[in-house]
Amino acid sequence: MIQARSGNISEEMKAAASHDNVPVELIYDGLRKGTIVLPKNNNRKYSGVRAIGSGLHTKVNVNIGSSPDRSNMGEELEKLRIAERYGADSIMDLSIGAASNVIRRELLKNCNVVFGTVPLYQVCFNLSKERRDFTDLKPDDFLKVIRQQAEEGVDFMTIHAGLTKKAIELLFKEKRLLNIVSRGGSFLTSWMAHNKKENPMLEHFDEILEICKQHDVTISLGDGLRPGATADATDHAQIMELIELGALVDRCRDKGVQVMVEGPGHVPLNQIEANMRLQKKLCHEAPFYVLGPLTIDFAPGYDHITSAIGGALAAMHGADFLCYVTPAEHLRLPDLDDVRQGVIASKIAAYSADLAKGFKDIKQRTDDMSIARRKLDWEKQAELSVDPDIVMEKRAEVKLNDEETCSMCGEFCAIKKINAIK
Amino acid sequence: MIQARSGNISEEMKAAASHDNVPVELIYDGLRKGTIVLPKNNNRKYSGVRAIGSGLHTKVNVNIGSSPDRSNMGEELEKLRIAERYGADSIMDLSIGAASNVIRRELLKNCNVVFGTVPLYQVCFNLSKERRDFTDLKPDDFLKVIRQQAEEGVDFMTIHAGLTKKAIELLFKEKRLLNIVSRGGSFLTSWMAHNKKENPMLEHFDEILEICKQHDVTISLGDGLRPGATADATDHAQIMELIELGALVDRCRDKGVQVMVEGPGHVPLNQIEANMRLQKKLCHEAPFYVLGPLTIDFAPGYDHITSAIGGALAAMHGADFLCYVTPAEHLRLPDLDDVRQGVIASKIAAYSADLAKGFKDIKQRTDDMSIARRKLDWEKQAELSVDPDIVMEKRAEVKLNDEETCSMCGEFCAIKKINAIK
Repeated sequence: MIQARSGNISEEMKAAASHDNVPVELIYDGLRKGTIVLPKNNNRKYSGVRAIGSGLHTKVNVNIGSSPDRSNMGEELEKLRIAERYGADSIMDLSIGAASNVIRRELLKNCNVVFGTVPLYQVCFNLSKERRDFTDLKPDDFLKVIRQQAEEGVDFMTIHAGLTKKAIELLFKEKRLLNIVSRGGSFLTSWMAHNKKENPMLEHFDEILEICKQHDVTISLGDGLRPGATADATDHAQIMELIELGALVDRCRDKGVQVMVEGPGHVPLNQIEANMRLQKKLCHEAPFYVLGPLTIDFAPGYDHITSAIGGALAAMHGADFLCYVTPAEHLRLPDLDDVRQGVIASKIAAYSADLAKGFKDIKQRTDDMSIARRKLDWEKQAELSVDPDIVMEKRAEVKLNDEETCSMCGEFCAIKKINAIK
Repeated sequence: MIQARSGNISEEMKAAASHDNVPVELIYDGLRKGTIVLPKNNNRKYSGVRAIGSGLHTKVNVNIGSSPDRSNMGEELEKLRIAERYGADSIMDLSIGAASNVIRRELLKNCNVVFGTVPLYQVCFNLSKERRDFTDLKPDDFLKVIRQQAEEGVDFMTIHAGLTKKAIELLFKEKRLLNIVSRGGSFLTSWMAHNKKENPMLEHFDEILEICKQHDVTISLGDGLRPGATADATDHAQIMELIELGALVDRCRDKGVQVMVEGPGHVPLNQIEANMRLQKKLCHEAPFYVLGPLTIDFAPGYDHITSAIGGALAAMHGADFLCYVTPAEHLRLPDLDDVRQGVIASKIAAYSADLAKGFKDIKQRTDDMSIARRKLDWEKQAELSVDPDIVMEKRAEVKLNDEETCSMCGEFCAIKKINAIK
């Protein structure tokens, strides 16, 4: 951001522009205005640089990491490999539990794309290890962890500084069905309730900015009050936090720290467009990073699908960055297959929005696929698809009388018939 | 329809209203106007009567049936059982190949919901068995099959009568990427190209109407030129056919035959709303039955997801009836697991639209789920979910330190923390 403001076009801007097939000037202009972020820590080198924001392809984030109930370094590294293979643009390590420092460092070493964390999770685990309650949190506890992770090379960090006493009051006054589902939000709320003070990450935001500026860490403003139920979407508490996030966007930009904003969550289909427009307006066109949104609440086991529906619509109406949701969401930590299914579902949502937005490379790929279908060229279809292996696998499962067609119609293939008469 | 026009409220109308939790007058009025259909053959008795159309819950159809490459009665019956279990509102038997008559009769006997067919498939197979080319088709060939299936009790039939010489001319003039992907459309096009005559199902539409009226068969006007590529969506040929379908809607209503209209197909996200409005307008608010729509072309293996995205948006903007798409679409005939995944994905799309449309029972279910989440009541969550088995299965896969939470956050569960401080 500071380079762009100084009139420089950096190698990272060129790499990000090349990845998105857009002119580098588009990224340069967006960085200057803050409508685009290019999360890259000064201390880290990696090949898969990405820019996120207005006018760019919709990006996809994959959450991995351990939990207190499940922690396995080998499995997390394999999740990283799968995520990158299927097109993740960034990885967030959300480890919370034993060995989380070790896991983060190992993932960071092996990751070839943008890398993010939620430092509060490490803080929380540190306190738990020291047998201190979270309500005993001191500013130094989180400033130390943020500094440590910034020095290690983390590219972006979720900072829940927009959660205020006022917003929490509104939340309890309005009687949400599911109150708070954000881990960061719940930690800070319990701290504020116990200490009867304002959010310490808001109170010490200048010090956080200082660290982030030093290492060029992009701030992802967390939405601690994001709705975890469609019934709670777009309520007073959510919008109050969004207003505060908008104010924090200005503080980041003034300081020269890149910033994006996180958003819901669970949102009914008919409120998604309004949520996107509201965020873009209230947060001065900062890049918008959404989790889902999930369009109904009762599809656990299939929430990669509810979130693909919501994510596609969100991205069409302004969301720039989709956090994947796996089939395991609401049930358990995802396993390897959940990660694969989650990233593919989110990529499909992103591609659907990008085709609607008129990105030429997506249009070319989808048209090439249709041409391959007309030619009954199965190898080309596999090559162009989001998951080439599954195309050949599924096709091979049924013995065919005619190798040109598939077992859906066989000799009655419409495409073959029309090719013959044309 | 005729009963409603005569001022009668039938038992079927009451059953359909009760299923949808709507006043029977809504269905009665819709049937009179033709904005709702209640597909039920005079000769068939079954418990799962459904009405489809304006003001009602979005319905989901499941296609099953054999192909020349794969035909197994036991498997088709099992697909029927799975489809009904996960909430299919109707079944279409699309068998095309050996034993298709036997399979249809057996499915019809075992089916507890609305049952549809595409008679042209049986016609096509009959000709193939007699070693006659499809171009040798005579009107009696299809009138005989339509009459036979109507007598057997089929509730609705796809009739591709809107495909005209003029529309086909436009199709080839406009140079589609993927021409025709409808099996019925391809048969009729090859007939028309060879015989240089107008569509025989259009020429003999009065005789088709006569049969359908006699047995109260609902006509589902097929879209032989539906786009099979997002590049081909909303083109001259598609809209020309839609205009003809609108004219046929009037002919059906004049005759007292219930009618709905079939639609695309593959449509980019930003053209879905326009397609829905156009169909409703041009077809005089007839119920709209869509296949997908798929929002990108290059996700074979995951087209239940591309179609859930398109289907949710289509239903929000007016589609009344979603035909499911399985992960096997474009690759092979679906197997049992494909059917399960396909029907659940379509139900999720339908529920997402119905929540957006304000249906109170869907709102109640989604809110009950959020309350069960707040209470950490896992059995209730399973009971309310689209697939209770998978909830308990996935949950049981990881050993928990705390049975109240899940392995995503364990002791750091946000919900538990907030419940404690509240």
